[in-house]
Amino acid sequence: MEHTETLSRYTANFVDELVKSGLSEVVISPGSRSTPIAMTVSEHPEIKQWVIIDERSAAFFALGMANQNKRPVALVCTSGTAAANYFPAIVEAHYSRVPLVVITADRPHELRDVGAPQAIEQIKLYGDYVKWFHELALPEGDTKMLSYVRSKASRAVHTAKEGNAGPVHINFPVREPLIPDFSLANLWGENVKPGYYPTLDGDRKLQANQINQLADKLKSGRKGLIVCGPQTDENLVQAVVHFASAWNLPILADPLSQLRSGEHHKDHVIEGFDAFLRNKSIRKQLKPDFIIRFGAMPVSKAYLFYVKEHKDIPQFIVEENAGYREPAGNATQFIYANPVMLCDDLVRIANDLSFNDSWLKKWQGMNLIAKKHLLAKSEKEDLTEGNAVRYLLDVIPEKSSLYVGNSMAVRDVDTFFMTTPKDITVLANRGANGIDGMVSSGLGAAALGQHVTLLLGDLSFFHDLNGLLAAKHYSLNITILLINNNGGGIFSFLPQANSEKHFESLFGTPSDIEFEKAIDMYDGIYSNVSNAQDLKSALYSSYDRKGLSVIEVKTDRQTNMEWHKGKWRSIENEILANEV
Amino acid sequence: MEHTETLSRYTANFVDELVKSGLSEVVISPGSRSTPIAMTVSEHPEIKQWVIIDERSAAFFALGMANQNKRPVALVCTSGTAAANYFPAIVEAHYSRVPLVVITADRPHELRDVGAPQAIEQIKLYGDYVKWFHELALPEGDTKMLSYVRSKASRAVHTAKEGNAGPVHINFPVREPLIPDFSLANLWGENVKPGYYPTLDGDRKLQANQINQLADKLKSGRKGLIVCGPQTDENLVQAVVHFASAWNLPILADPLSQLRSGEHHKDHVIEGFDAFLRNKSIRKQLKPDFIIRFGAMPVSKAYLFYVKEHKDIPQFIVEENAGYREPAGNATQFIYANPVMLCDDLVRIANDLSFNDSWLKKWQGMNLIAKKHLLAKSEKEDLTEGNAVRYLLDVIPEKSSLYVGNSMAVRDVDTFFMTTPKDITVLANRGANGIDGMVSSGLGAAALGQHVTLLLGDLSFFHDLNGLLAAKHYSLNITILLINNNGGGIFSFLPQANSEKHFESLFGTPSDIEFEKAIDMYDGIYSNVSNAQDLKSALYSSYDRKGLSVIEVKTDRQTNMEWHKGKWRSIENEILANEV
Repeated sequence: MEHTETLSRYTANFVDELVKSGLSEVVISPGSRSTPIAMTVSEHPEIKQWVIIDERSAAFFALGMANQNKRPVALVCTSGTAAANYFPAIVEAHYSRVPLVVITADRPHELRDVGAPQAIEQIKLYGDYVKWFHELALPEGDTKMLSYVRSKASRAVHTAKEGNAGPVHINFPVREPLIPDFSLANLWGENVKPGYYPTLDGDRKLQANQINQLADKLKSGRKGLIVCGPQTDENLVQAVVHFASAWNLPILADPLSQLRSGEHHKDHVIEGFDAFLRNKSIRKQLKPDFIIRFGAMPVSKAYLFYVKEHKDIPQFIVEENAGYREPAGNATQFIYANPVMLCDDLVRIANDLSFNDSWLKKWQGMNLIAKKHLLAKSEKEDLTEGNAVRYLLDVIPEKSSLYVGNSMAVRDVDTFFMTTPKDITVLANRGANGIDGMVSSGLGAAALGQHVTLLLGDLSFFHDLNGLLAAKHYSLNITILLINNNGGGIFSFLPQANSEKHFESLFGTPSDIEFEKAIDMYDGIYSNVSNAQDLKSALYSSYDRKGLSVIEVKTDRQTNMEWHKGKWRSIENEILANEV
Repeated sequence: MEHTETLSRYTANFVDELVKSGLSEVVISPGSRSTPIAMTVSEHPEIKQWVIIDERSAAFFALGMANQNKRPVALVCTSGTAAANYFPAIVEAHYSRVPLVVITADRPHELRDVGAPQAIEQIKLYGDYVKWFHELALPEGDTKMLSYVRSKASRAVHTAKEGNAGPVHINFPVREPLIPDFSLANLWGENVKPGYYPTLDGDRKLQANQINQLADKLKSGRKGLIVCGPQTDENLVQAVVHFASAWNLPILADPLSQLRSGEHHKDHVIEGFDAFLRNKSIRKQLKPDFIIRFGAMPVSKAYLFYVKEHKDIPQFIVEENAGYREPAGNATQFIYANPVMLCDDLVRIANDLSFNDSWLKKWQGMNLIAKKHLLAKSEKEDLTEGNAVRYLLDVIPEKSSLYVGNSMAVRDVDTFFMTTPKDITVLANRGANGIDGMVSSGLGAAALGQHVTLLLGDLSFFHDLNGLLAAKHYSLNITILLINNNGGGIFSFLPQANSEKHFESLFGTPSDIEFEKAIDMYDGIYSNVSNAQDLKSALYSSYDRKGLSVIEVKTDRQTNMEWHKGKWRSIENEILANEV
């Protein structure tokens, strides 16, 4: 078979199998070597594509989309450092378990490692950060090889999403000439046997004796604590709530657990724990008999201290497939089972339980005090970071997503995101907690129509400023709430703040960037607000219109820190005074 | 020894040894875990530091600086995806042989792989792209370990620069608390034995019989061709010129060879070869008896065709240390020897040579025809990309550097950079030929005071737009000549251009970005020029003032391509007609 026909059929069968395997969103970065793949993706009638120039942004865009929609998204780039630019998002996707199918075009073998232009070593480029790597054979057109290439596409999509989801890498070498022929009959391989699907993925379920074993350990103490860290399974929310209700236990709900928002009952949901667990004496008072955690480790550092100080109590961590997310160094029993089924099992054997209410009431009482102080407004309060988050959560629309940046943003959400009946999905990049790629992640989450509000700080906004081009290019709808404290706000809370000599240059890094100009360059609507009224008004306006809206709140790092500390002090004082 | 004292002495000895080993420029990206290293670098009296928020830009900034100044530059970042952002520049530094000392702060071992925040696997993070990797021990304060840490700093710097220069990676784990104590007596370890220096690096030199062997092969044919590809050793320029003169041979001088500029004799320098080697018949006429190449493979694709079509003639490639940069797939004798010494050796044995002039004159004749057409101006010519490059080279100041972007920019420089007595250093990132990091590379090259002009296209400018923050923050002086053809101009020259349906979205990628707004945001002076007079005027003004100057030339991709092709046609026609 002639070169162009071979190239065309091989690539078309590969791309078609991605679609048959359930993948229909592809993010392409422009290049020459990736031409056959890019053009074939473009030709396929069932694929939605986005072309994003900056590969680093492209990868985070794909990650945000996969995170929101819970299915794999593919990336296509050319050979060379283009592929290296994907690395930060791939690392994040690895740790936060987001499915990506990374397809890097490559020079053919005779052009590798000989000083040929734009040829770098791409075999296992991402090391252990991908779940699976495969270098495809150079294109061949016989039936056996068309089946082969389908089986790899299929395997890539399935591997990305099964078990702990994550990124996979396919390296795709091609020789020139690179333009496919889309006029070929039977191009999409309608008669080629599909490779590897459909798959049946069984769920891990504990046996009856294992359930009983676990239940006995849990029942031996009345002061049990359910913890739900970052996770995105909506079914788990209801399951954990039932479990807590049946066992009459409090649930520490991380802001990213999805437990703080939605129509489920929230009586047992304790969301203000970060504020009062900051106090050592309170942590001591709240010594539990056991902890059972779903999801990743909560954001709250105070919770980490709490766990460390109670290292002798039994701790159980539930993982659906695999993992070892226990950073406190405590002895832990890992339960590898579908967490929804596990909760159902635990609810089923709760009949003969008798728990008194005092433990739960203790937590609920402290939670109320925390919420009271956190939500209290004084007349002379400016629009602080915390208040901005509060007002955002007041006005954020139903059935929308909040994508939270790392550093101060997620901590402010932890503090000020109180339970709400609103249907809000809370997303973040907590795999590696970087300040990179946030704009692109938020836009990727919004790209299929989901209403998204992105909350982030100025350093994060700057880091992925290039991400805004996608908003302009694709007229994406997003509201970005930008908290600008002119530098690394989080450092004000750390010991580094006491080192005046170095602080500003090394940690404060004031960048004095007037972001309005960049936002304008990308056809965004910019507003700068300095009071609650204007903030709410700007938010509402942004939700009512299409396109890119950026609302900037300028805060002062020092003021912000003092305001936070004041709140925490008030909470601790009242709790300790009341000896709740 | 107590924690903080241990941390302080360990880090200070490490940093001090970098300096003693000859490294005094450090580029830091802000973070918390990197605090001890960053603060210690800041405290050291002999280090110049730059703080650059975006780690991708920071790494290219360091690369540009190391490329210009020919000595290692260090990078410091925090743990997590920050380190992953360095990857593109590290890949480039690997292939273009630029010395970087990459220092990534890390979480201590007990916080790795357990779901702790901002902890990723950083051991061998960059795989085979670094020459050397070492994870430091956690800080210890006894004399043995202070000597140990010095030896690693010293080894890092030396390894980065010896042989084929390149990046090295030191992973530096530290526990909290992170603030060093700079009040300690004898902090910088004045009494600690240095580790590994001074080194004596010998040069590879061919033995007499090897020289004779080589000379015999070269002397057997009169139509020898010297080729000088990208390289940055000024001494090699003079050496190659002497060699060419002694043997009466033409030198094909790549735009990045440093041979086209400077005070050396240029009679033998053929710079217009890319234009006339495009013609197959001319390539055939110019069949050489041998080729001897210094430096990497030239940029010119026409030259690649030339070499491929003469695969049976002896080819010699000179490498100072190691390498296999032969992408044409031809049988080649590699000569691993100091190229300056080799040239001297070949000059020494040139006494009994008798060469006639016809071969050299043939090349010189074609070169003159090429130059004539390329430099010819017609009245109705707009400011094309090529002309813009020409005028730039007319006015670029003495003793300055031209940093050339990839894609169209370097090809235009290949076409229009004619020999000049001006002392111009021509730099590029030709290791992997990416469009990333160019703004930062140019600024890094300028950061120590060198006058730099950066020439690049709009996609490259966009890709590293964040790089401009360093110009604003450090008031760096640079002239950026931005050729905006609104997308991927190079694709107009490729077969892809015929695929109308996909072309604009996949390859043209018009971004319609009004860069002036971004430039203004970074306090740059922007000008938009559309004729030769205004261009020269804008360039002169930029050279006369400080700070960031960006001169944008908007061109039309289609027009540009037709203009180029017209020139090449004229050249071919005249040469073939003359049968020079």
